[in-house]
Parts: sequence; structure tokens; C-alpha cells
Amino acid sequence: MRFASDNTSGAAPEIMAAIVKANEGYEHSYGADAAMARVTEQIREIFEAPQAVVHLVATGTAANALAIATHCPPWGAVFCHRHAHIAEDECNAPEFYSGAKLVLVPGDHGKITPDGLSTALATTGESGVHGVQRGMLSLTNVTEAGTVYTPAEIASLTALAKAKGLPCHLDGARFANALVATGATPAQMTWQVGIDVLSFGGTKNGCLGVEGVVLFNPEKAWELELRRKRGGHLFSKHRFLSAQMQAYLSDGLWLRLAAQANAMGQRLGQGLRDRQAQVPEAPANMLFPDWAVGHHDRLEAAGAAYYRFPAPEGRERARLVASWSTTEADVDRFLTAF
Amino acid sequence: MRFASDNTSGAAPEIMAAIVKANEGYEHSYGADAAMARVTEQIREIFEAPQAVVHLVATGTAANALAIATHCPPWGAVFCHRHAHIAEDECNAPEFYSGAKLVLVPGDHGKITPDGLSTALATTGESGVHGVQRGMLSLTNVTEAGTVYTPAEIASLTALAKAKGLPCHLDGARFANALVATGATPAQMTWQVGIDVLSFGGTKNGCLGVEGVVLFNPEKAWELELRRKRGGHLFSKHRFLSAQMQAYLSDGLWLRLAAQANAMGQRLGQGLRDRQAQVPEAPANMLFPDWAVGHHDRLEAAGAAYYRFPAPEGRERARLVASWSTTEADVDRFLTAF
Amino acid sequence: MRFASDNTSGAAPEIMAAIVKANEGYEHSYGADAAMARVTEQIREIFEAPQAVVHLVATGTAANALAIATHCPPWGAVFCHRHAHIAEDECNAPEFYSGAKLVLVPGDHGKITPDGLSTALATTGESGVHGVQRGMLSLTNVTEAGTVYTPAEIASLTALAKAKGLPCHLDGARFANALVATGATPAQMTWQVGIDVLSFGGTKNGCLGVEGVVLFNPEKAWELELRRKRGGHLFSKHRFLSAQMQAYLSDGLWLRLAAQANAMGQRLGQGLRDRQAQVPEAPANMLFPDWAVGHHDRLEAAGAAYYRFPAPEGRERARLVASWSTTEADVDRFLTAF
Amino acid sequence: MRFASDNTSGAAPEIMAAIVKANEGYEHSYGADAAMARVTEQIREIFEAPQAVVHLVATGTAANALAIATHCPPWGAVFCHRHAHIAEDECNAPEFYSGAKLVLVPGDHGKITPDGLSTALATTGESGVHGVQRGMLSLTNVTEAGTVYTPAEIASLTALAKAKGLPCHLDGARFANALVATGATPAQMTWQVGIDVLSFGGTKNGCLGVEGVVLFNPEKAWELELRRKRGGHLFSKHRFLSAQMQAYLSDGLWLRLAAQANAMGQRLGQGLRDRQAQVPEAPANMLFPDWAVGHHDRLEAAGAAYYRFPAPEGRERARLVASWSTTEADVDRFLTAF
Repeated sequence: MRFASDNTSGAAPEIMAAIVKANEGYEHSYGADAAMARVTEQIREIFEAPQAVVHLVATGTAANALAIATHCPPWGAVFCHRHAHIAEDECNAPEFYSGAKLVLVPGDHGKITPDGLSTALATTGESGVHGVQRGMLSLTNVTEAGTVYTPAEIASLTALAKAKGLPCHLDGARFANALVATGATPAQMTWQVGIDVLSFGGTKNGCLGVEGVVLFNPEKAWELELRRKRGGHLFSKHRFLSAQMQAYLSDGLWLRLAAQANAMGQRLGQGLRDRQAQVPEAPANMLFPDWAVGHHDRLEAAGAAYYRFPAPEGRERARLVASWSTTEADVDRFLTAF
Repeated sequence: MRFASDNTSGAAPEIMAAIVKANEGYEHSYGADAAMARVTEQIREIFEAPQAVVHLVATGTAANALAIATHCPPWGAVFCHRHAHIAEDECNAPEFYSGAKLVLVPGDHGKITPDGLSTALATTGESGVHGVQRGMLSLTNVTEAGTVYTPAEIASLTALAKAKGLPCHLDGARFANALVATGATPAQMTWQVGIDVLSFGGTKNGCLGVEGVVLFNPEKAWELELRRKRGGHLFSKHRFLSAQMQAYLSDGLWLRLAAQANAMGQRLGQGLRDRQAQVPEAPANMLFPDWAVGHHDRLEAAGAAYYRFPAPEGRERARLVASWSTTEADVDRFLTAF
Repeated sequence: MRFASDNTSGAAPEIMAAIVKANEGYEHSYGADAAMARVTEQIREIFEAPQAVVHLVATGTAANALAIATHCPPWGAVFCHRHAHIAEDECNAPEFYSGAKLVLVPGDHGKITPDGLSTALATTGESGVHGVQRGMLSLTNVTEAGTVYTPAEIASLTALAKAKGLPCHLDGARFANALVATGATPAQMTWQVGIDVLSFGGTKNGCLGVEGVVLFNPEKAWELELRRKRGGHLFSKHRFLSAQMQAYLSDGLWLRLAAQANAMGQRLGQGLRDRQAQVPEAPANMLFPDWAVGHHDRLEAAGAAYYRFPAPEGRERARLVASWSTTEADVDRFLTAF
Repeated sequence: MRFASDNTSGAAPEIMAAIVKANEGYEHSYGADAAMARVTEQIREIFEAPQAVVHLVATGTAANALAIATHCPPWGAVFCHRHAHIAEDECNAPEFYSGAKLVLVPGDHGKITPDGLSTALATTGESGVHGVQRGMLSLTNVTEAGTVYTPAEIASLTALAKAKGLPCHLDGARFANALVATGATPAQMTWQVGIDVLSFGGTKNGCLGVEGVVLFNPEKAWELELRRKRGGHLFSKHRFLSAQMQAYLSDGLWLRLAAQANAMGQRLGQGLRDRQAQVPEAPANMLFPDWAVGHHDRLEAAGAAYYRFPAPEGRERARLVASWSTTEADVDRFLTAF
């Protein structure tokens, strides 16, 4: 009954086995390990992108900050949702790495709307040298509200950004969950709909700590590598990052883990709806249900762990996140305790 | 015969076992894990410093950059050896995090001399607002030249810095090796000789990737924590950093691993001296021997791996690093192939 | 009929005379000139603040950026109005100097409301290390909408910030105009209502280019001085900054110039109202009137210069700024051409 | 007898007259003034560089920092003399604006030697992603030691930099003095010998406070403009910068002023040599003579002002700087008092 975050679960057995195996013998450091070469091949195959380049780091904040800094100048604006992780949960890391300003775009359910983005694009960068210049677009999928952009929705937003010449970033801390929820392929969710750089999450979905920064255009690869080192994010025993990612991408493990997380999220949502809770649209593994006052204490007494969120008078709201390791029994115990 | 770097070796079995064990069940994220509380206790015990605070990161560059940024203002000078790792091998990370300028101090064999430091201190910060201000001192032990500062030598340098009111940092990427080489206790090598903040290395000495930033004065703990997050260095599944460090510090493992590395370094040095190589003073696990032309090719043909360094006419020079995993057989095969 | 901005007018005769006079002979550079000592005395007298420290720079953006950087850490949030000059017109300079994030607070007519600020304060810095921390408050008076905060209104906002321990900045690019409009004394508008640091404008109000950063608490004086130099804002021939400010502050010149600008702004506003234009509240020298379609072209044809602003269907909107050099004849010609 | 610095003198009468004249009427702000267009034409004519772009700022530190930031990435090294103004007298401004590291190159008499630069180039940027990358070359002429590079000497250094693909900057705070001393044309001293960007000094040589950043390649013009604004260096009443520069460049004023300063420097040097002082090579307006102990007190008692420098036992050393306003009578009184 641990639904606080997908990062409170551990690593999947296959990932842990890969770490143990990677420990054998000596290996080149700083990314020159053999497994990293294989990871690059895997990324290119999975994304159907033969030119793609991937760099590994250990945290999502690092992946986002490096991706943004590599695509937005210090006098640029990063257009993102007003509740984006980069805006609310990264303690100015994107600004630290890039110097840029985040321009917050409104939108319900965690999603930027084309209208919202159009307005932000139209009202930014129009005062010449005085104001911040339009820099780039950053989307998140699965969104911070647990909703999921379809490829078509992403395309409608990136088209607006591209019309202004802006590169587009996707924060995919829960990228696998978004794919499972939509049935889209990796290519359909990224470069085919205008995404130039992807933060490809592994940590929340069964790894110990690894994220890839995937550049669909290799021109900025060396700059990103220098920025990674300068940020202190280049691992000496890099093999342990590569090993995680290689196992994660092998035999569809990453999608299987996400499918389990999503299925448990859906089971939880359905069970709560059956019990008269309000459950806003949440097609992946993260829910923000609300219910009549009283359940929080009962659930907590039963041992459930999750975040309480502000709710209207007479109601309680929760953030519930299922992970690759959530079982049907976990969900059902929660529902029973509800 | 892999002597390229101590970071080409893997993790010690005890560390790997701890990682595997840490994977069980759910755990609080972002440093609130139970193992981290234990690590703090261990650090305080080992350093005889009941107020010390430790933060974990995954790379040495991150540890150094955060330690420096927390102690030196953007208009400050960091006095360090001209071949310091922070100066030569971190791609401006210390400058990125702190904004400070590194003032390079000369000195033979990788060591700053009191005279050299006195001169640098006297000629920096004397032009009022126009020049950089004196900021802090940063030493490295084991040094980049493989030599080792004794506690008394450190004290003689920190005393000069303290006389100017400057905090002192020790880059201890190979801290355990320095302790083993000198017989000093952790306290004798740090706060008892004026060190305010320590980069406490684990990665090179048998961990997968973990370094501690140890603050002997807890006042800056919250600032360091914010800087760690802002740098993208706060792990969500932090338990995997804690587990490594907890195992590393348990039952003297860290010192045993360093003792093995140092012993193999000494065996290698003695063997080379016996074979007429020149081996400059190197009491720990890193050697920079030189020898008559011809050995490089022979060693390489025999499968030895290490870095070749520039050498005078007629000579060859190498950097050889032994690690916790180096065996007597490794050393002896190298010597035989020499 | 030049109402584009108060910075399209030149310098007042008294200021220019002071510049010419300051040119005689040799003078110490970098702020050690005799006139600067006198400026400090004047600021202390005028603000009834015997401990105040003032540093001169040449641009308002520099004054704001330095004031903010000196009071807000890189992981902090600067609460400001969503149309604040620091947010819209300084090309990320505040972020560049401070590293901080601007948190935009809504409010009609250019003014932050206590409710708006309370909400922003309550929803920022509540996620521990993950989010930006509350840093400081920055207000603007005269506001970007041409309205003016009374001292009591400022007090109600700074009280909320102080309750969270935050320092408070006032962007006073048009500080003199705000004083004239409210009848408040300099002290009543600043430190007596919780302002810790003031950007004290001279440029728009009859100087060539000089702004003071006034610290009511001298503790940060040296830091500000270092930041000024590091930003490239310390003048070598500083006497030319001092001379402007000294003349500006002598014999009430600064308030006389602002009184003229405000009077002309009011005359313009009244004249427009008499001609059926809508003129939102604007007690100082900057107006944002709107009127029926057609006047823009007529005014422009008559030689009027000002900025056109977006307006609702069937209407036109303008920004009109009167300055110290605007005459009654200028205003009346504009009204006649309207 | 004021020889402390050329920035203790005021503005030349022609410059001051231009300031006064520029004050008439209204003028576009932020660089759109008519005089600025004329300044651009003048720069292009004088430098025989029809594509050159110039931006004006008020301080030399701003000019240097912006020039460097526009040409060197944050992971780059700026090769400069170990006593360069950017290294010793700008309080980390170049690092603040660029993020780069200054690599200090030795050389006698303030001049980098080709050998010294070759060594620095060869030993920097050779460790792949780990170390700082080669970024750019920055020279100073007149040098900080009062010596002057000939165009041929500059060419020999820029050739080494260009061979590595590096852009080259010239800090010309005393550019006019260097031209007068060598007889070179502006083009011969800059783009014809590999200089890409010039800090073109006006302040020390008779202006109130104006420096140009001259880009011989216009591609970076917009970036430089954004960086200027972001640094708070864009003047609203820009006409007062333009007016200074326009007058400075008109009718050869800038070279006449420098010729006077240099002539007085030479007169001073010859007079000191005649009185048995040692006067190292100093073909422009700045001298570092040394003499037997005793003269300092006598000169000071007579009212001479200059900086005392460290000297060997039994000797005294001074920095003496003549300016456009130094007269023969000033020099002769100094020599008499000696």
C-alpha cells in the first residue's frame, strides 16, 4: 500500500541482476564502456532514429536541466506548463544550467492547450532586446496531473513552437507509462511529432537511478557531453549506468514494467470510482482522486502511504502513484481499507 | 594488469551485496531513507565529530563543486595546486557552481608549499574591489602526483589560510588511501588540522558511485542541500547511495580496501625500483615511474593497461594506479612483463 | 508632443551644469571622489537614515539586478507583479545576477494585492528542498501601469513578506514621481514601511544616466560593491555619476522635476477625459488611456510620439509618459490634435 | 603632477561640448539615436571594415566581459597574460559573464610570447571532456606593463590561436595610445592581424565613460546586444554614449589626445632616465620606473600623485600614467621635484 511515489519502490530484478553482472572485471570509465555502445544502438532501434545520441545521467533533474541548457540560450524563455516539474520541483536547476526564464503556460489537467501556448508565444519576445526571447518548448508526458498527451496533442503544440523556430523538449520521467497509456511508439511520441530532445526516464520505472538525454539531432552531442561533465554528472564507473539502461531496454522490459504500473493505476482508479470517489482522468499510473472527509485517517491507520493534497471543504484529495512493483494485492488492500 | 585508474575496477563484494539488500521493499526517497540516518552516525563516529553533517552525491566532481560553492563567494579565489583535479579535470564545474576563480599555486610533487601559498595569499585580494577576493583553500590528499600530505603538512597550510579567515576544503577522492599511507585518523587528517569541508571519496575505492560531502560545521548544511538539489544531484532512490556508504564505512571495509590498494601500489613500486625504473615518492596507490625507452610496447603487448605520460628524451613515463581489486598476481605479472 | 517615454527627454540644465563643473581638474576614480561622499550624506539626510549606504550605477536594470542579487539566494524566489519591469523588460538580468526565479503575482492596475501575495507566499517554498525557496519581495512604485502605491499599501505587502522573514526591494525608477503623487516622504515610502533596498531612479527624471542602490541596512554594502564591480558597473570616472546625483538631490531639484512631470501627466489625463477618452487611475506621469478608433492616426500625423498598446475592438490604447521637460504647450498641442 | 591613472583626468573639451549639445531636445532611447548610426559609420571608416558592428557601454570591464562571453563558451579557456586586466582587475567579471576559465600565460614585460602561448595551447584541452576546452585568445594593447605589441607581434600570437580555431580579442582600453606608439592603422592593429573583437577604449583617453565593443564579424551582433541588455549595460539615454564616441572619433581627436598622452609619457621617461632612474621600455603613456630610495617621499611632499609599486631592496618603484590632459609643465614640475 505504498503509493507515495514510484520512486519509493526499488529496482526490478532484471535491472539489479544487470548491475551485479556489470561488476565483473575491469571496464573503461567515463562512458567508454562496452555496454554504453550497446545502449546507443538500442535507443536508435527503439526510436527508429539512426542518428540519435543518448547520454546517461542519474537523476531526472539533471536530464531536464542539461536538455534545456543545450537548447535554450541564457536570454531565452522556456515555455512550460505552470505546474511542470521543471518549474515546481527542481529548485531552479533549469535556470541554473541554462540561465533561461521559465514562462508558465496555463492549462487544465496538467496539459498546455494550443490556445494557451499561442498566447504565451505571442506575448513573449515582442519587445526586442528588452524582454526575454522565445527559447524553447518543454512538455511533460505523463503530465504532473497524471494525464497523458497523445502524439497528436503534442504535434499541435510543437507545431506552434516550430512556427517560431523553437526546439522542443519532452520531459519523459514517465515516458514508458505514457507510451503504454496511448499505444504510441517511441518515434510517434517524439521526433515524429516535433520533439528534438527527450528526457528518457528509467529511475521511476524500475531502475536504481538512470535517465537518458536523447538528442534526435546529433549536432549538439558534444555540447551536451561537456555540459554533463561541467555539471558533475559524468560517472567514472559509468558501466553501472549503462548496465541499468541496457537491461531496461532489453526484451521490452521497460514497457512491461510500465504496463504493470499503469494496470495497477487503472485498477486503483476503477476501485475508487466504484466506491464513490471522484477520480479525474488518469490513464497511466498516477491519480489525484478526491473523496468525502474521513478516508485519509482510515487509510493511514491501515498503513497506506501517499501524499495528501489540498482539497475543497468537506473533501479530501490524494496523490496515488502505482509503480512497476505494485501488486493487485496492494491495490485491493488499499481499496478494502478505504 | 589493469592500472589505468582505480575507477576501472568494479565494486567490492560487500558494497554490491549492500546494494542488492537495499533493494528490498519500499523506502523513503530523497535522503529520508533509514540507511542515510545510519551513515550520518557512522561519519560522526569515524571522524569523532558529533556535529558533522554529510550529504551524498554520485561523483567526485559534484562533491568538490558543491563543497566549494558552499564556502566561496562568486567574487572569491580558491587557492589550489596548479595540477589540482578541480583545476585540470572538472571542466569548469567548480567555477560553474561557485562563480569563483581558481588561483593556481605551484609546488613540486603535487603539493602546495607554505611559501607558495603565502605568496599567493599575499598577492591576491590586495587591490580592493578590483580584484578577486581571497575565498578559500582547497587541498587534495592523496595528491594528483601520488604523494601524500601528512596532517602536519596540512596544518601548516590551513594555518596560513585561517590567518586570512579562509575556510579549507580537502578533496579526498582517495582519502582512505591517504589515511592508510600516513597512519592518521580521519579526525587528525581533517578538522583537527583545519579542514572545514571534505570530499570523502568512495567511488575509486570499491563503491559503484558515491561520495560524501562532510561539513564539520553544520551551519551550511541546508545551503549545501539546496545546492545539491539545484545541481540535479539529489537522488530520488537515495537508498542506493546510502547503502553503498553504509557498507563502505562498516567494519573498517573502507580502510581494508585502501590498504590493499596501497599495498599493491607499494609492491609495484618496489618491483619497478628493483628493475632500475625511477619511481618518485608515492606512498599510496598511484605511481608515476619512468624508465628507459622500450618497456611501454612490451608491457602493452603483454596486456598491461595504463596511461602513458610525457617523458624526457630517452625515457618513458607511466601513470600506474592500483585499486582495492588489484592482486599480487596482477602486480607480479606486470613486473614479469616489464 | 514626445510622450513615448521619460527617457527620450534629456538632462535638466542643473544636472548638465553639474557634469560640466565636475569635469574640472583631477579627481579620484572608482567612487573615491569627493562628490560621492556628499551624495551619501544627502541620501542619509533625505531618507532620515543615518546608516544608509548608496552605490551609483548608470542604468535601472543594473540597480535592480544588483539589489536583487544581494538579497536573494540563487535558490530563492523573487515575488513581483506579473508585469514588473524586472519580469518583462530586463532580458533576464535579475536572473543572471541572482540565479533566482521570479514568481509572478497577479493584481489589477499594476499593483500586487495582499491576497495575491499571500497566495503566492503560501504556495511557494512548501515542498522542502525540491522547490524554489521564498527569497524576497520586489515592488515597483510608480507601477508599470502608472498607478502608485501609498505607503500604507506598501506596508501591507511588506508585512506579509516580513512575516516569512523576507527582505523587500522597491524598484523606484520613478520614485520621485511616486513621492510627489502621494505626498509621502522618502522615509515614509521606504524603510518606515519595510523596504530594505531601493533602486532610486535618476535617469528618467532629468539625469543623463544615474541610479542609486540604497541599502537601509549597511551590512550588505561590501557585497553590493563587489557585485557592482563584478558586473562591470563600477565607473572609473565615477565623478560623473556622483555629480549628477549630487545636483539631483540638491535644493529639492529631484522633486521639482517630478512635480513638473506629474503635473503635465495630470493635465494630459484631464484633457483626455474632457475629450471622452477613458483614462484609468494614473496619479503620476504615465497614462494608459483608451479612446475610440481614429485618434492614433490623427495624433501621429500631427507629430505626436508615443507607444500604441493593444486595445479591445473599436478602441485604441496608448501609453503616454510626461517628463520633467514636458511643457503645458506640449500637452495642449497634443490635446488639440486629439 | 597627477600620474595615478589616466582615469583621474576629466573629459576633453570637445567631448564635453558634444555631451552638452546632445542634450538638446528629445531623442530615441536604447541605441536608436541618430548619433549612434553615425558612430557605426565612423567605426567602419576608421577600421576600413564595412561589416563591423559596434556596441557602446560605459566601462572597460563591461566591454571586455561582453566581448569574451560572446566568443567563448562556459567550458572554454581564455588564454591571456598572467597580469592581464581581465585576470587581475575585473573581480571575476569575465568569468561571471562567460563562465569560462582564464588560463594565465607567462611572459616578460606584460607580453605573451609565442612560446608561452604555444605551451599553453598544447597543454590545455587535451584531456577530452574532463578539462576545460580551448576557447579564445585575449591580448591587451597597450599592455598592463606599459609595453606595446606591434601588429607583427599580435599576428604571431593570433596565428597560433587561429591554428586551433580560436577567436581573438584585443583589450584596447588604451588602443589609441598603442596606435600612436606604433604608427599602425586601426585595421593593421586588429582584423588584419587576426583580431575578431576589440574593446575600443574611450574613457581613459578623454571621454567621460564610453567604450565600444567592435565586432569585425557581424554574426554575433544580436547575441552581443542581448548580452549587453542582460548585463544591465544598455543605456536608456544612449545618446550620451553616442555623443561621446562620435566626438571622440571626429577629426582625429582620439589620436590627438593619445599623442599628447604618449608625448608626455615619453618626456617623463626621458627626464627620469636623465636623472639616473631605470625606466623599462614604455613607448606609450604608462611607465614603471624604479630609482634609489628617497624619491617617493620627496615627490609626495611636492604634491605628486601616483601608485607606489613593490621594489627590490634599496629601490623604489612607481607606476606613472600620463593622460591627454597632462602638460609639459606637469611633467617638468615632477622632474624638478624628483
